[in-house]
Amino acid sequence: MGGLVEDQIRGAMRALVERDDRLAQAVIDRDREVNSLDVEVDEKSVELLALYQPTAGDLRFLTTAMKIVTDLERIGDQAVNIAQQALELNPEPQLKPYIDLPRMAEKAQRMVKESLDAFVHRDTALARRVCAEDSEVDSLKEQVFRELLTYMMADPKTIPRAIRLILISRFLERVADHATNIAEMVVYMVESKFVRHALHSEGGSAPLPNLPPADGAG
Amino acid sequence: MGGLVEDQIRGAMRALVERDDRLAQAVIDRDREVNSLDVEVDEKSVELLALYQPTAGDLRFLTTAMKIVTDLERIGDQAVNIAQQALELNPEPQLKPYIDLPRMAEKAQRMVKESLDAFVHRDTALARRVCAEDSEVDSLKEQVFRELLTYMMADPKTIPRAIRLILISRFLERVADHATNIAEMVVYMVESKFVRHALHSEGGSAPLPNLPPADGAG
Repeated sequence: MGGLVEDQIRGAMRALVERDDRLAQAVIDRDREVNSLDVEVDEKSVELLALYQPTAGDLRFLTTAMKIVTDLERIGDQAVNIAQQALELNPEPQLKPYIDLPRMAEKAQRMVKESLDAFVHRDTALARRVCAEDSEVDSLKEQVFRELLTYMMADPKTIPRAIRLILISRFLERVADHATNIAEMVVYMVESKFVRHALHSEGGSAPLPNLPPADGAG
Repeated sequence: MGGLVEDQIRGAMRALVERDDRLAQAVIDRDREVNSLDVEVDEKSVELLALYQPTAGDLRFLTTAMKIVTDLERIGDQAVNIAQQALELNPEPQLKPYIDLPRMAEKAQRMVKESLDAFVHRDTALARRVCAEDSEVDSLKEQVFRELLTYMMADPKTIPRAIRLILISRFLERVADHATNIAEMVVYMVESKFVRHALHSEGGSAPLPNLPPADGAG
């Protein structure tokens, strides 16, 4: 499902940059696949919960998976949003060469991939890196915004196109936000297991346990 | 938690309409409360899953609750987004009287409330009504957009303020989207239980075990 939504983002951005209406339409049509995967993972997780009644780490892994698929499904929605804007922009003359938007998209895609890797390997160091990357995407978004603002101020005819590009930057920001949400859930999943473990073995009302720093240098 | 995020949206919109910086700041500060409720409900749900290992309807109710709190937490984030835009807009002269944005906000808030009522009462008719209301919010958003576009075209000096108002309309749209997501999950929760029940009573190659009903009547 992660691979599919990454593909969808990539497809939507290619549809924009290469002005390819058919690709944009293909991304929109393929959203049904993403949605059915969402339902499928959800079903499967509830089934596993019912059948095996897992406890502790496994239980939290499953409930986190159920939350993650919701984020993935919404990342898929962002790809559709971008593809729809591409369909509107393609018939118009191109406002400017696209440089920052593809960079944003690449970063956001990488964040999605890394957040899922962090989940699968319960890797909180990687998850924390994803959270840190979010600010890079945010500053690219600000940069896109400021640049397009100068276009709009200089020539009001560019406003409708510029606004569509600003929206695309916001959709990409939301992709990065979803990846950050996933990464945060991974940290929470792994560390609250630690908390429980600490509580259990010490039996007291322990505050947070003594977590090793992410880089292991501490 | 539902009441709190509704309050947050209301506060953010009042901060905008009444140009009240202190209220905007209060909304931003209060987001921590929303976030801690998210963690609390999540913790409680995992605990209930682990302790009581609920089956069938109760299991799905709990896993749905865990997904819903994520949506509520993100509705809270939208209130913060609106409050931040209010803080930027308040020192500037007001571009126009706010009419459609408060209407959007009201509709979106009502959708949040109704989606949670639908959840609590497993009321799919109400949930479906919420999904239908989403298109009203979308058309208000389009209306806001078209109106602000004319302002921007006529006077480029209005562009920065107009864009902030457009963003606010998008934040409200996302609140409505989250409510719609909640409503869809309610429909899915209630009806997939029905589907399972049907499968089970017909004795097909049911993958699910022979679960006792939640009320112990079986």
